[in-house]
Amino acid sequence: MSNPTAPVLALTMGEPAGIGGEITLKAWARRAGLDPFFVIDDPDRLEDIAHRTGPKVPIQVIHSASEAADVFATALPVLPVPLPAPVVAGQPDAANAKSVIAAIATAVQLVLDGNADAVVTNPIQKQILYEANFPHPGHTEFLAALAGITTPPVMMLAANALKVVPVTIHQSLRDALDSLDTGIIIQAGLITAAALKQDFGIAHPRLAVAGLNPHAGEGGALGTEETYIIAPAIEALREAGIDVFGPVAPDSLFTSHARKGYDAAICMYHDQALIPIKSIAFERAVNVTLGLPFVRTSPDHGTALDIAGTGVADESSLLAALEMAGAMARRRAVARRHAVIA
Amino acid sequence: MSNPTAPVLALTMGEPAGIGGEITLKAWARRAGLDPFFVIDDPDRLEDIAHRTGPKVPIQVIHSASEAADVFATALPVLPVPLPAPVVAGQPDAANAKSVIAAIATAVQLVLDGNADAVVTNPIQKQILYEANFPHPGHTEFLAALAGITTPPVMMLAANALKVVPVTIHQSLRDALDSLDTGIIIQAGLITAAALKQDFGIAHPRLAVAGLNPHAGEGGALGTEETYIIAPAIEALREAGIDVFGPVAPDSLFTSHARKGYDAAICMYHDQALIPIKSIAFERAVNVTLGLPFVRTSPDHGTALDIAGTGVADESSLLAALEMAGAMARRRAVARRHAVIA
Repeated sequence: MSNPTAPVLALTMGEPAGIGGEITLKAWARRAGLDPFFVIDDPDRLEDIAHRTGPKVPIQVIHSASEAADVFATALPVLPVPLPAPVVAGQPDAANAKSVIAAIATAVQLVLDGNADAVVTNPIQKQILYEANFPHPGHTEFLAALAGITTPPVMMLAANALKVVPVTIHQSLRDALDSLDTGIIIQAGLITAAALKQDFGIAHPRLAVAGLNPHAGEGGALGTEETYIIAPAIEALREAGIDVFGPVAPDSLFTSHARKGYDAAICMYHDQALIPIKSIAFERAVNVTLGLPFVRTSPDHGTALDIAGTGVADESSLLAALEMAGAMARRRAVARRHAVIA
Repeated sequence: MSNPTAPVLALTMGEPAGIGGEITLKAWARRAGLDPFFVIDDPDRLEDIAHRTGPKVPIQVIHSASEAADVFATALPVLPVPLPAPVVAGQPDAANAKSVIAAIATAVQLVLDGNADAVVTNPIQKQILYEANFPHPGHTEFLAALAGITTPPVMMLAANALKVVPVTIHQSLRDALDSLDTGIIIQAGLITAAALKQDFGIAHPRLAVAGLNPHAGEGGALGTEETYIIAPAIEALREAGIDVFGPVAPDSLFTSHARKGYDAAICMYHDQALIPIKSIAFERAVNVTLGLPFVRTSPDHGTALDIAGTGVADESSLLAALEMAGAMARRRAVARRHAVIA
């Protein structure tokens, strides 16, 4: 390998009818400063994208992850997973679902076996996977099953200016209110604090916990979840030795001034977390899965079927995801070496 | 008057134990470019603040609003409302509540009589007014009662980068979900569109309407309010001739790119509106009350009792509120002149 200490990142193809291939080529073209990555994909379809919309990136098939680092400087390394059906941009085909799933499973196997150092996933189209009998609600649950863990992983959206962790995610707002409980807040806080240390190199992480209601309930006048659900979770986290404060009035938590006071904000529902980070840092936000036995990041956007094949897709978030995965994998590698020495 | 076409703004004292006096002095000290304003306040307590924490602003008592414009260049004009009890910074006293209320009522009377052109309010401490038997939930309801209107006014938070209108406001999130209905969305949309024309000079305003649920309900999988409550309101607004689109996925609505596509976002609950505007533009956001028969703005913060008397209060939001009130009053005056000519 060119640099034996550099991590090697396994990137999945994602939905082949989406923008994944295009942004992968564009990311490789802007690879300066990135750790080497290879993509688990169909080389023919990548050649096709390079030819049709560009960028005209050289592609080289590899047969094991160990070849990736040497190839990376001069060509995009591709570990092949063939697609059985022709790819039509913007039109997902259930006949290709097995290959999409196989690419994810292969990436996880490679990191679990120590042949790659992090998983970066291109966006998938869930509906089309369901049609092919994919039994998991989404990427994250599939990764947890492949890793054999039973504690649900935690989703973090991370940018330089802000890191947020929603404790309820893909539920209606009403269902999120109903499912909010002290236990999931504690669990999210514990996993987040551990990840800030292990993966982000923050020795003494500080967590802020958002309230649920306007003005964090204003002493009970605008809601009681702060008193009965959120405050007890904060107390439990504090007893576990975590530096944490809250519940904070949600609209005060994300001002440029307030953001300086914590390393991550634990949020009560999807949009409480995603509205501020997308308002502030849309193009550079990365989706990070915490609580897995390996590093996993992904761009903070979907398959963008509406613009697939047109050449206008923006690779910024994938670049940020690759960059963050590399940085996280380096910190884990250092921690492992220290553990071996100790 | 120095400039007979310039509007004159009536500023209320707000809670005297809060930061209102200090930011009023600081705003006058930075008056270049502002329309003339006078404050309805106790001149002795303003002298006291100027002496203790500064800025050492000259104060001049006036006896009618018509004197304000001439005085404004050289001193802060004060229309006196005496405070019966001594003011202790940070410690509101119910004995002063009647004066706080009187300052608001005086400002409204002056604009209704045509002796001033806009009301700008310093923040009040509601709890202390309730102790003095103030019968209104807050500022806005009191202003509506003074103006004799029965349609509830609409709250807008406005900054250069973003204008947002929450259709439910000071309720727990659960109560906000329960009280969301098609009618209040339509009403907010109609009042907002009219105000964008009349007060903000936007000839063809474009409204975006947020969804309630993650991904705007994702076709019903994550909630049905978009289908049954929000979409019908959008349809009704469109039928009323308003350029409107939505329901938009809430986390996609406030990116720097998305914000270019509309003049105001109609939001379903308090924090959906306030989180993005405070994330983006905290210090320069202004609270504007739409649907009153006069212009009313206020700074987008509270009384800040914790820092009152220390001299560190930031006058940016009050400055922005004064600036916006002046601009809005000018547009209304032009419209009135055109109406008279026609």
